Amino acid sequence: MTETALFPIAANVEALERGAVLAPSFNADGLIAAILQHAQTDEVLMLGWMNAEALKLTIESGEVWFFSRSRGELWHKGDQSGQVQQVVEMRIDCDQDALLVKVLPQGDGGVCHVGFRACFYRVVEGGALVERPQT
Amino acid sequence: MTETALFPIAANVEALERGAVLAPSFNADGLIAAILQHAQTDEVLMLGWMNAEALKLTIESGEVWFFSRSRGELWHKGDQSGQVQQVVEMRIDCDQDALLVKVLPQGDGGVCHVGFRACFYRVVEGGALVERPQT
Repeated sequence: MTETALFPIAANVEALERGAVLAPSFNADGLIAAILQHAQTDEVLMLGWMNAEALKLTIESGEVWFFSRSRGELWHKGDQSGQVQQVVEMRIDCDQDALLVKVLPQGDGGVCHVGFRACFYRVVEGGALVERPQT
Repeated sequence: MTETALFPIAANVEALERGAVLAPSFNADGLIAAILQHAQTDEVLMLGWMNAEALKLTIESGEVWFFSRSRGELWHKGDQSGQVQQVVEMRIDCDQDALLVKVLPQGDGGVCHVGFRACFYRVVEGGALVERPQT
């Protein structure tokens, strides 16, 4: 299944940037980046990847689906962990190659397999990494 | 110049996920995704891409550098537009393949070439796009 089977391609730059038609631009691997942001705290939780089918499933179900690059398969986030991500709002950027998904994390309220609530628990300081979860 | 010339590769999963060594994982094109978030309002502003040199320049200068995929060259954000992005904090995720950069946009206070403050000015609603900048 190709992405063009599920979503149209923008006719021109004006349609891409200012149009009302969802015409996501997938990369060479057929993927688009999706930033998950907590809908209440505004904390950026993680960055994941969707293919066209995952995007369609996310829109239709109201829960986040990704395409797992390591496993090469569709991935309903939270199926194993309970960390289902309920979609509150989905945005797309100017050139339609990145999504911003505002979510309410279910289960333990997190997204990260390491055990922190969010994946961005380390700060780059003086060239090294310091663990300091966002407040 | 390869990324390994500027940054080490994590020795194992433990080092990658919990280590203090910055060992960014670049994709097949030598790039890592960088989310820009406004340091004061928490608004997610844009998603850009850095190669190893752009990441090094960002860390050293305290201003955001990207690698422009369309132009195939290093790009000091704001050089033309005045929208220089002053870095307040940089974070990296669990598997070190995404950056979260908290910034203070200079110039007109925005990041987007279309004229909105942030790139995510459209909401996906009922399968279509509606222009509604984040508040």
